[in-house]
Amino acid sequence: MRIVVDVMGGDHGCAVVIEGVKQALALDDRLTRILLCGDQPQIEAAMKSSGLKDPRVSIVHAAEVVTMEDKPTLVIRRKKDSSMGRAIGLVESGDADAVISLGNTGAILAYATLKLRPIEGVERAGIATVMPGPDNEFVMLDAGANTECKPIHLLQYAVMGSIYSREILGYKTPRVGVLSNGTEEGKGNELTREAFKLCKLVDINFIGYVEGYDLFSNQVDVVVCDGFVGNIVLKTCEGLAKGIGGMLKRELRKTPKSMLGAFLAKDALGALKKRMDPDLYGCAPLLGLNGIVMKSHGSATERSILSAIRITTDSIKHQLNKVITTELLRATERLAGTETESPASANA
Amino acid sequence: MRIVVDVMGGDHGCAVVIEGVKQALALDDRLTRILLCGDQPQIEAAMKSSGLKDPRVSIVHAAEVVTMEDKPTLVIRRKKDSSMGRAIGLVESGDADAVISLGNTGAILAYATLKLRPIEGVERAGIATVMPGPDNEFVMLDAGANTECKPIHLLQYAVMGSIYSREILGYKTPRVGVLSNGTEEGKGNELTREAFKLCKLVDINFIGYVEGYDLFSNQVDVVVCDGFVGNIVLKTCEGLAKGIGGMLKRELRKTPKSMLGAFLAKDALGALKKRMDPDLYGCAPLLGLNGIVMKSHGSATERSILSAIRITTDSIKHQLNKVITTELLRATERLAGTETESPASANA
Repeated sequence: MRIVVDVMGGDHGCAVVIEGVKQALALDDRLTRILLCGDQPQIEAAMKSSGLKDPRVSIVHAAEVVTMEDKPTLVIRRKKDSSMGRAIGLVESGDADAVISLGNTGAILAYATLKLRPIEGVERAGIATVMPGPDNEFVMLDAGANTECKPIHLLQYAVMGSIYSREILGYKTPRVGVLSNGTEEGKGNELTREAFKLCKLVDINFIGYVEGYDLFSNQVDVVVCDGFVGNIVLKTCEGLAKGIGGMLKRELRKTPKSMLGAFLAKDALGALKKRMDPDLYGCAPLLGLNGIVMKSHGSATERSILSAIRITTDSIKHQLNKVITTELLRATERLAGTETESPASANA
Repeated sequence: MRIVVDVMGGDHGCAVVIEGVKQALALDDRLTRILLCGDQPQIEAAMKSSGLKDPRVSIVHAAEVVTMEDKPTLVIRRKKDSSMGRAIGLVESGDADAVISLGNTGAILAYATLKLRPIEGVERAGIATVMPGPDNEFVMLDAGANTECKPIHLLQYAVMGSIYSREILGYKTPRVGVLSNGTEEGKGNELTREAFKLCKLVDINFIGYVEGYDLFSNQVDVVVCDGFVGNIVLKTCEGLAKGIGGMLKRELRKTPKSMLGAFLAKDALGALKKRMDPDLYGCAPLLGLNGIVMKSHGSATERSILSAIRITTDSIKHQLNKVITTELLRATERLAGTETESPASANA
């Protein structure tokens, strides 16, 4: 497996990325090649200081870096030699099986859509993000690629999310729900009501509408929504989890007794923190493109890079895009079949 | 101050509601009359067992109860003698200054809109909900009344939410933000982009777009969104907070050492739980109607009823609807002024 990593554009510089790559290489012998894309002197310095010497690693120099402030539409035209563009280009040219980047999500999406193109039949790529509940992990998509969705986009996210949950997270028949403001009939908005009808027609384990309450109580494995809502939900959860963590820390520091309590309970508190840690989830795949594209958090640590590489190799191993292509085609046929069948069954 | 309480329709029966009323009467001498609306025998039994004897209390019998399963549009026509309809009717007739109900939100909204009508100039009533951050409390609206919003609705929510934050929560110049999927220009959807432009024109402390991250980090005091998004965010936060609480409890029970730690830290853990407790926030006002209407949680305890009554008396004291009427009129004039001014300034 050959993975290209855009090592630039993260918040902590390329050293943490390279440290994560080093750990992944030590653990995973399925990795036959890692291409590190970015500023050559910086990469060489980071490799030297982390002691990364591995014949499987090569450097692909790129002179420019896409920043978080860059406008996705402009960056493609203006930064011809960006590490991100070059990294995605290596998947386009067939030199790598997958790409990982920590950079500007909008720019990754723009480059990847331009260079790799959507899988045939896919209307819009979506960002899938895995979130931890107490008793399961659910995947939510779209988390921000596609702000103004049509019902067919949500249907395709339902199918792709279901595949991701099954192939990568290991849920045999993932429960798929459309996120809504209530589970009763008539709830939702125009988009969700139409998407609901479509999801009932295809071959997924569709459980109908789910509410915010259901996300963290093991009711659903794949949560489908438009990118506006998904992005808000994702960031709200991150913000609330951090807020609760901060409040807990502050309360525990208030008296010597509670500080002692916190000390004794530190394994339990650590386990909770670990469970909620976005690092563990490593990356969010862009689903629906001809090529495996993984977006890592801008503030990714070496541990998240390690985890991102593991998820990426899993995605390659499971031939994620081949499965998506096949199952989306089947879904499309189902939808078309239902359309042509309806008048006949009405006459029957 | 005269408050009518629809004591039916909560999850725990009318006894907890009546216990909350009793506690409020003992604490607040601004209360001159409390009307308890519902099934008379049940109310009498509950009053007897809680020992509530107060000359300020009267019972208004109603034979029917609106259930959580009732369809709002049907309930108005079919349940002519519901406690909820009768309670809201007492505000309409001028026999009460405000109404509190624990029942079906859609039905409260339908009854209240029909009987009380929106304040002149208000396009759609909104549900405001107060949420706790580590260092502030913010109000979010709409939390579910109005699923498909127009930009002018969000503008009016911004003005009403700002008034609520100032008058009831005590924030002098509340920071108002439109909830979006990013703070950069060009983010958001059609609705938020138009609402953004309108909010800049009126006399509120508008800080622009806010993201999910910002909600729980003291960045914003009034969060404006459509009822679909607001409802999802509200329920997701409740679900996540509960999920984290459950995970923490489970981790703490794993070893005797961490159990001892939890015991020592129980004040701190209790303080956190209290801070996150929806009970404390008691109720969510329906803003924009001719009459003060408070929706309490279906699972409200006596403590939340006590808190709801306090918030309701505060709303009456601050003449919330009079302030809303005045400031919305001023906002409307501002918007109209900007429209007529624009061509002139373009010629200047």
